[in-house]
Amino acid sequence: MEEEYYGSRDVQEDVFGGANTIQKMMDVEAALAWAECEVGLVPEQYAGEIQKKCSVELLDEAVYAEARRTTGHPLMGMLRAYKAICSKEAGEYIHYGATTQDISDTALILQLREAWDIVEDKTRRLRKILAGKAREYRSLVMIGRTNDQQAMPITLGFKISTWIDELDRCLERMAQGRERIFVGQFAGAVGTMASLEQNGPRVQKLLFERLNLAAPKISWFATRDRLAEFTFDLAMICGAVGRMGNEVYNEQRSEVNELAEGYAQGKVGSSTMPHKRNPFLPGRLAGRGRIAGTLVMRAMQCLENTNERDCRTLCIEPYHLKEICCLADGTLDIALELFGQMEVHEDQIGHNLEILQGLIYSEALMMRLAEVYGRMEAHELVYELAMAAIGQKRQLKELALADSRVTAHLTEEELENLMRPEHYTGLAEHFVDQVAGTA
Amino acid sequence: MEEEYYGSRDVQEDVFGGANTIQKMMDVEAALAWAECEVGLVPEQYAGEIQKKCSVELLDEAVYAEARRTTGHPLMGMLRAYKAICSKEAGEYIHYGATTQDISDTALILQLREAWDIVEDKTRRLRKILAGKAREYRSLVMIGRTNDQQAMPITLGFKISTWIDELDRCLERMAQGRERIFVGQFAGAVGTMASLEQNGPRVQKLLFERLNLAAPKISWFATRDRLAEFTFDLAMICGAVGRMGNEVYNEQRSEVNELAEGYAQGKVGSSTMPHKRNPFLPGRLAGRGRIAGTLVMRAMQCLENTNERDCRTLCIEPYHLKEICCLADGTLDIALELFGQMEVHEDQIGHNLEILQGLIYSEALMMRLAEVYGRMEAHELVYELAMAAIGQKRQLKELALADSRVTAHLTEEELENLMRPEHYTGLAEHFVDQVAGTA
Amino acid sequence: MEEEYYGSRDVQEDVFGGANTIQKMMDVEAALAWAECEVGLVPEQYAGEIQKKCSVELLDEAVYAEARRTTGHPLMGMLRAYKAICSKEAGEYIHYGATTQDISDTALILQLREAWDIVEDKTRRLRKILAGKAREYRSLVMIGRTNDQQAMPITLGFKISTWIDELDRCLERMAQGRERIFVGQFAGAVGTMASLEQNGPRVQKLLFERLNLAAPKISWFATRDRLAEFTFDLAMICGAVGRMGNEVYNEQRSEVNELAEGYAQGKVGSSTMPHKRNPFLPGRLAGRGRIAGTLVMRAMQCLENTNERDCRTLCIEPYHLKEICCLADGTLDIALELFGQMEVHEDQIGHNLEILQGLIYSEALMMRLAEVYGRMEAHELVYELAMAAIGQKRQLKELALADSRVTAHLTEEELENLMRPEHYTGLAEHFVDQVAGTA
Amino acid sequence: MEEEYYGSRDVQEDVFGGANTIQKMMDVEAALAWAECEVGLVPEQYAGEIQKKCSVELLDEAVYAEARRTTGHPLMGMLRAYKAICSKEAGEYIHYGATTQDISDTALILQLREAWDIVEDKTRRLRKILAGKAREYRSLVMIGRTNDQQAMPITLGFKISTWIDELDRCLERMAQGRERIFVGQFAGAVGTMASLEQNGPRVQKLLFERLNLAAPKISWFATRDRLAEFTFDLAMICGAVGRMGNEVYNEQRSEVNELAEGYAQGKVGSSTMPHKRNPFLPGRLAGRGRIAGTLVMRAMQCLENTNERDCRTLCIEPYHLKEICCLADGTLDIALELFGQMEVHEDQIGHNLEILQGLIYSEALMMRLAEVYGRMEAHELVYELAMAAIGQKRQLKELALADSRVTAHLTEEELENLMRPEHYTGLAEHFVDQVAGTA
Repeated sequence: MEEEYYGSRDVQEDVFGGANTIQKMMDVEAALAWAECEVGLVPEQYAGEIQKKCSVELLDEAVYAEARRTTGHPLMGMLRAYKAICSKEAGEYIHYGATTQDISDTALILQLREAWDIVEDKTRRLRKILAGKAREYRSLVMIGRTNDQQAMPITLGFKISTWIDELDRCLERMAQGRERIFVGQFAGAVGTMASLEQNGPRVQKLLFERLNLAAPKISWFATRDRLAEFTFDLAMICGAVGRMGNEVYNEQRSEVNELAEGYAQGKVGSSTMPHKRNPFLPGRLAGRGRIAGTLVMRAMQCLENTNERDCRTLCIEPYHLKEICCLADGTLDIALELFGQMEVHEDQIGHNLEILQGLIYSEALMMRLAEVYGRMEAHELVYELAMAAIGQKRQLKELALADSRVTAHLTEEELENLMRPEHYTGLAEHFVDQVAGTA
Repeated sequence: MEEEYYGSRDVQEDVFGGANTIQKMMDVEAALAWAECEVGLVPEQYAGEIQKKCSVELLDEAVYAEARRTTGHPLMGMLRAYKAICSKEAGEYIHYGATTQDISDTALILQLREAWDIVEDKTRRLRKILAGKAREYRSLVMIGRTNDQQAMPITLGFKISTWIDELDRCLERMAQGRERIFVGQFAGAVGTMASLEQNGPRVQKLLFERLNLAAPKISWFATRDRLAEFTFDLAMICGAVGRMGNEVYNEQRSEVNELAEGYAQGKVGSSTMPHKRNPFLPGRLAGRGRIAGTLVMRAMQCLENTNERDCRTLCIEPYHLKEICCLADGTLDIALELFGQMEVHEDQIGHNLEILQGLIYSEALMMRLAEVYGRMEAHELVYELAMAAIGQKRQLKELALADSRVTAHLTEEELENLMRPEHYTGLAEHFVDQVAGTA
Repeated sequence: MEEEYYGSRDVQEDVFGGANTIQKMMDVEAALAWAECEVGLVPEQYAGEIQKKCSVELLDEAVYAEARRTTGHPLMGMLRAYKAICSKEAGEYIHYGATTQDISDTALILQLREAWDIVEDKTRRLRKILAGKAREYRSLVMIGRTNDQQAMPITLGFKISTWIDELDRCLERMAQGRERIFVGQFAGAVGTMASLEQNGPRVQKLLFERLNLAAPKISWFATRDRLAEFTFDLAMICGAVGRMGNEVYNEQRSEVNELAEGYAQGKVGSSTMPHKRNPFLPGRLAGRGRIAGTLVMRAMQCLENTNERDCRTLCIEPYHLKEICCLADGTLDIALELFGQMEVHEDQIGHNLEILQGLIYSEALMMRLAEVYGRMEAHELVYELAMAAIGQKRQLKELALADSRVTAHLTEEELENLMRPEHYTGLAEHFVDQVAGTA
Repeated sequence: MEEEYYGSRDVQEDVFGGANTIQKMMDVEAALAWAECEVGLVPEQYAGEIQKKCSVELLDEAVYAEARRTTGHPLMGMLRAYKAICSKEAGEYIHYGATTQDISDTALILQLREAWDIVEDKTRRLRKILAGKAREYRSLVMIGRTNDQQAMPITLGFKISTWIDELDRCLERMAQGRERIFVGQFAGAVGTMASLEQNGPRVQKLLFERLNLAAPKISWFATRDRLAEFTFDLAMICGAVGRMGNEVYNEQRSEVNELAEGYAQGKVGSSTMPHKRNPFLPGRLAGRGRIAGTLVMRAMQCLENTNERDCRTLCIEPYHLKEICCLADGTLDIALELFGQMEVHEDQIGHNLEILQGLIYSEALMMRLAEVYGRMEAHELVYELAMAAIGQKRQLKELALADSRVTAHLTEEELENLMRPEHYTGLAEHFVDQVAGTA
């Protein structure tokens, strides 16, 4: 039972802590008063006062708590506490012409954008660390595996580059989503701006500019696809990072032992088994990546709303929006810690290339023999040798050298050349350069 | 138990029917032979022959079925049947230097693009129908509801415009996703293109151009975020259309009866209750919209893959990819049918504006009285009148006219003007124009 | 952004608050020391001391916090803080022969059982309230609806009885699940009890008896189906209660207005629309019911574990287990509040029976005419009358009385009798008695 | 793109094939006519005729197809085709007094029970195979792993027994669920049995007895928790079997190679890599296990229904109910194939016990030294030795024998005894006997 929420440090407290939640709503109210002042609806002195008092730290906690309790709503609590620190006249102009959801939706968007910015920044930092690793291990040959079976060589930089490639698309989606998602809400009870009449559009325009938000084409009280996209974009980051974590978890297993969570001497892995080095950070990433999809599911359940507003979905939205933000933030924190100090066991990586008796070069051998025998016959020949190697637990090379069909066309040296892992990584390094850059 | 899959007609059979699945794989093989011919790996005559035989209709069904059964894989079945209709020499060059997943992934992408194109086209057609309706009912005043309670007037065009607005973002996401998603796969066993050596990049380039696909920066055998985005984008359409359907379902209920599934005289709604007019099409939309998220969940479960390829997720992918395509296609078919003939009950819409004793103008009255009494006092005054209206089951107007605090500032005519629904729809029509255009 | 977690009061703080989480782990450690003392592994005086100090209130918060922070694990924090308040000798015997997960799993089970007991008790209380309502409104005739269309009469008691029937199965599942789910864990590092050797089984037996837990047949470190069942059973309660809430939400809509959240004079529904009476409690129930399934999804994602223990799932389990407990608890709190004071608008219920021009008796009329005309012909006859009633907006009775095919066999009095709602509720009251009892 | 549905053979075609779907509905109609005959509502000769014609093979396919197409509903198609093969008089008595959903729900339950029986039977067969394996390998010592790190020895039989233990609870849940789930539906349009009046209960009783179904306490048209439980129970089997499959997938990886999918000489693992032996069956199990939860999610989304019947959920139910049945059936088929011929590589299992330089005995050594040094000091001592072994790549035993703190209390022989894997499997065999029996 952890007290922190998915390991999130920055987002959980700084963004979704009570103080910031209230501050964001106050920010919207103050900006609204300013905008309404600009069009002549609110006298300048009161707009100024509202702006000046716009700080959660000035509120009387007791007043807020009491109002929040009796009204059952943080917005109502804020309103009462805000008015209590203003003059009666200025207080009359707070929330002027606004509907509750105008304020709560716009404040929510401001809050979500703060979380989004943090997540995006950390994603970029992770990308940078990974790009450094990809370049560092651009040419470190390791075995590639398909279906967890040793297949043919790759390089570690190549493997890491597939992670970066996925992160890059996550960032691209976020860049495109940003413009769609971060819009304000200011539309009155049913979205028609009836209360402000002809002043509505100008107030809206000024308000959103002040808050640096885009304007929607129509109110979105009951149209919540933006929030589903928000959730999806962050969940995809969790998924991408979860895959990386799961990979390290797998590569750290005792029998493979190629990558590992950095290990500080003195750290105790297990109270009962002194030798254990547990992949806790990788495990936490994998776990977090797996569940992100359930939050997308929830956000999509909030798409079905009836009529012009629907509290059945509104009342549950805050939970999963906070959760996905904290999940993404915490996942990235763990990833930054893990990949900042990940161990690469080059010895073991080299050793693992040896364990399959040279069978990992069967394709290379087949392609070469295909030049003389055609592909079908070459496949049969190599398959026969491979089965013999497995059955007799001997090296493929040894058996190949004993087979006249091979030696008739290949010298020992040529065969040895063929069976050097670094000779069969294809364009691995080219792809690293393409994804991670060459800098 | 329906035989059709979610009501999909075009996608289920034309795209995911067995013939097209095989044809797409043949298309990739033929394009590959052509590309390899261009770089000199495949003799021109064989590449030509492979191209000429590239039609599922030429295959011997029995050969395919037998090979598919024994190998357990449609690709293997196709390969054997394809070779059987080619000369031995040409057959040797089919699938040259390719890995199974190169072909199956690229063919899958071609198939998914066909489904995507159909869905996108139907979404545009639906958008057009809805835009027509929004303009037609731009000024038809109806009650707006929040939390299913009558609130203040909107217009029907305004309501429909919020649907269009959501669809527009779905289309925008698809436009952006298209470039990211539809890339080919041609990378060899572990993604390094080791088998084709220096010819790899050129073959890849030619192959993808031939198939009109973009090239990925690195192989994506185990990086499946594109398929999750594909699923999400289609699921969001289902969600948007599901909301529309659910809305009609709600508006059709006997006590509301404002909108309804078009009804052909002679159609029997219920075997036992001759009067029933059931909202079957709206209900089917709502149901389909609700489950789309579970497919996104599945697609996201396929993000976690180990190493360079992982059959644990590959083996389940085809099910949900087909399902989301059929779901989106079927949902749109139903929507096109529903909205092409939806009934708008203008009488009942007018009637429903009357049933709340004029309470739906309480905000309008309050805003007017606020000009003289200030907002707080005005709220109290109107609240008092409203409670009396509810308690005594009388019209708000009647009570207002009996209250000197009101009549001191408002004439009966002014009050009546205030309480005309068409006078309190704010900018509803403006928003219709903004979303649905004015054409 | 609500501070409380889904509205849970009792479970969130009392069960999952930090103090109780630590206390439960201490309880397990103390019971273990006692059990090991019984078999002679721990000297009596130390076991006694450990037992005596077994209270979270005795711990030094600073010691705990520091240890928790450095070890990253609440259990480690607890162990260090526990030892710090014991003599060095007694401290040596805390956690003797146990694996971390032995303690954390068993403590988790104790915690979950506390939440389960609270939820079960509240479910019974809700069932009792509903049974009272069902009996109270056993004979209150209201319109039954299918697909939200008026169909034929039922009674309100009948409707409520279908809710009770569902709750009863939830309780039955919980009764059966209880024995399966609440088992202890005490099995050592890999589940073989290797460290305690032959003492293992006796220590286990004594430990579990002391904690009133059943013994598993084999360790369940990596076998987590019990926790999925736990989650499912609680989620099903949320689902059942969510349906009730959603029903009230629907029945409260302005145009139906048959049921409603109790309304206290003076409560302000909306800051802008004084007349609004929002179904907030019903809405909160509906919202909570909808998302419960996503937590089952998560619990099921934790079924796949590798080898003898897998931290990838262990590290996320606590989040959804806490969440489903708080969700169920909060949902039930809201339900108890709602159904304790729900309004039943009998006038409006009666009124709504009238609005369909008598068409709701079409089946009754058809069944009667079938006695003379056969069912097919009767269906046609009544269908004809029904369409005329709809088309001409006249009462079915009126048209029937004007049709000689009807009057040839039915007197006006017989027809009127047929068209009394209370004459066409079938066995509704019988089913109420069967489900809700007759007491 | 596989044509079969998740690999299901028996359930997909035999149970959910079109013929059986129609037959089940006919069975219900025939049983209903019989029951109504018993109470005197249907003349004996017609009931007899209806019963005699109750075979889908007698229906005219063209009549069915046409009626199904025009009505859009399989039930309507069946009714028309059924009547067409009966005399006009008998035809009048088919479906007498029933509502569409009475028949479709009851037929659905019959269909689901057939699938359930098949699944339950295959689960028992799998359990038997596994129990045989558990007993066969009761004492085969292998390394136990936590977090994929080598920890301490277990036996293979012990590992398999944790699978059986989970399956046993699945079977127990099914046994308890069976009585709750398989109830009939016969309640008339809104559930009150209004149409049959006082004959209702007797007809219901006779009908359900005839079909060997239990009777619900009240109609469940809109109360679908039983179907969610059905889905959950089958999904849990998929989850349990998925875990087994995933375990074999992991154990088969090249570097571990302890368990493997049985391999027939001549089978080609990969077209390009002749040596590959892919864990396709294990992978298919793992994939299927992962997605089962999304179907539970869907079934739970169908809990929220409004009023007495709700087509929004009814119209999607058939898809996931069929899907979970086919998924469970297919998963079990694959499991039966896999575990019937799974390879156990005893050599490699023995080899893997050696690779960690004896560190897997660190707990055993610590517990022994704790007898003289106390646990804390012993932990430190062994930790020091373990770190040295890792750092210097030497055997723990060797280092221990070189340390006087160890040799002062342990002879070389004692140490060797301590470090025999078969001496440190604790009660592994006892647990096998407890779960898998000793027969």
